Amino acid sequence: MKIGVLGTGMVGNALATKLVQLGHDVMMGSRTASSEAGQQWQRSAGGTARLGTFAEAAAFGEIILDCTNGANSLTALRAAGSANLRGKILIQAGNPLDTSKGMPPTLTVCNTDSLGEQTQREFPDTRVVKALNTVNCEIMIAPARVPGDHQLFICGNDPKAKAEVTQHLGKWFGWKAANIIDLGDISNARGTEMFLALWVRLWGNLGTPHFNIQVIRGS
Amino acid sequence: MKIGVLGTGMVGNALATKLVQLGHDVMMGSRTASSEAGQQWQRSAGGTARLGTFAEAAAFGEIILDCTNGANSLTALRAAGSANLRGKILIQAGNPLDTSKGMPPTLTVCNTDSLGEQTQREFPDTRVVKALNTVNCEIMIAPARVPGDHQLFICGNDPKAKAEVTQHLGKWFGWKAANIIDLGDISNARGTEMFLALWVRLWGNLGTPHFNIQVIRGS
Repeated sequence: MKIGVLGTGMVGNALATKLVQLGHDVMMGSRTASSEAGQQWQRSAGGTARLGTFAEAAAFGEIILDCTNGANSLTALRAAGSANLRGKILIQAGNPLDTSKGMPPTLTVCNTDSLGEQTQREFPDTRVVKALNTVNCEIMIAPARVPGDHQLFICGNDPKAKAEVTQHLGKWFGWKAANIIDLGDISNARGTEMFLALWVRLWGNLGTPHFNIQVIRGS
Repeated sequence: MKIGVLGTGMVGNALATKLVQLGHDVMMGSRTASSEAGQQWQRSAGGTARLGTFAEAAAFGEIILDCTNGANSLTALRAAGSANLRGKILIQAGNPLDTSKGMPPTLTVCNTDSLGEQTQREFPDTRVVKALNTVNCEIMIAPARVPGDHQLFICGNDPKAKAEVTQHLGKWFGWKAANIIDLGDISNARGTEMFLALWVRLWGNLGTPHFNIQVIRGS
């Protein structure tokens, strides 16, 4: 499968590397096709790893993984171009973190809006699915690193796109469908993005970003 | 123990009733000591259940449980009076929910501030401990309704107050100390209050407010 991965940071690196290992045709996109981070990834990933601009990676992919820094995602997606994203599923893994005022980060948008909603509004012809943004990238690609059952939350306006993403998350990374909770339309990205405020504090408390939560139903 | 419970809603009702059952001297406070909701509680709780104004309940309690509607908590606490709250532990269970724009609710304060911080700033001589605000009131008083281990998050500026609250939560309601995560100072209330945005969506998804999360450490 041809997959465009936007972003050369930790998240883009982890997901793109895993997808290359699985034998997919992956193009990583960044502001400049020749970015040092991208070239390092291409060398280490080997295989069919390709490098391009945001626009080239978006045009290349049959499906797009948005792994850009959430605070810059809209800028990156504009560079990718709405024509290149039209009709495609865009899995958005980022959170709109503002680290400019120190740690722990705040969010650039929350409460009455979300990055997921902003993205869907600005790219109405793209099938935005918010997913993976509540766990560290090492857990995204290997949920078995956290013992037992634990949940991933997805949301988006297109039920077929969410069903397809649920299948991909299983095949690519090992997420059981039964552990993926579909929260509903894209406005529910407010819930998963705002979880970051608790997540970063748990990271500090546990001393590792490698954790997740299990939702347990009571009586 | 003499306990002041502020608020006659579901949360105040659940906690105050449980505390009366345990044999504590409980006074429930509201805007008017003769509120209908308060009188209903007093009749149903029986025992030593007392009713008063916010100020009377705050003066009565050796420890205060703030179970007021989060959007109105500061107004209620001003009515309680800083002199009546001075030096005392205030366990704040509420979240600053804004339901005026429909469901799911948004928060009246979040991201760069929190109700917990606002409360501690306005009542600097009170030992504010944010706790219980990430679960439904039926789970607050009976964590065993959710099977297995699952977590409660507390935060506050006074370590001794948090240690005391941890003991109370165990004795009063059955929360194991090992399942109570101390996130640090009161600014961490941003994390637990913002979790509400995910919590309300999980409530919708699960069809019951009786659930909680287990934090699972990975490798």
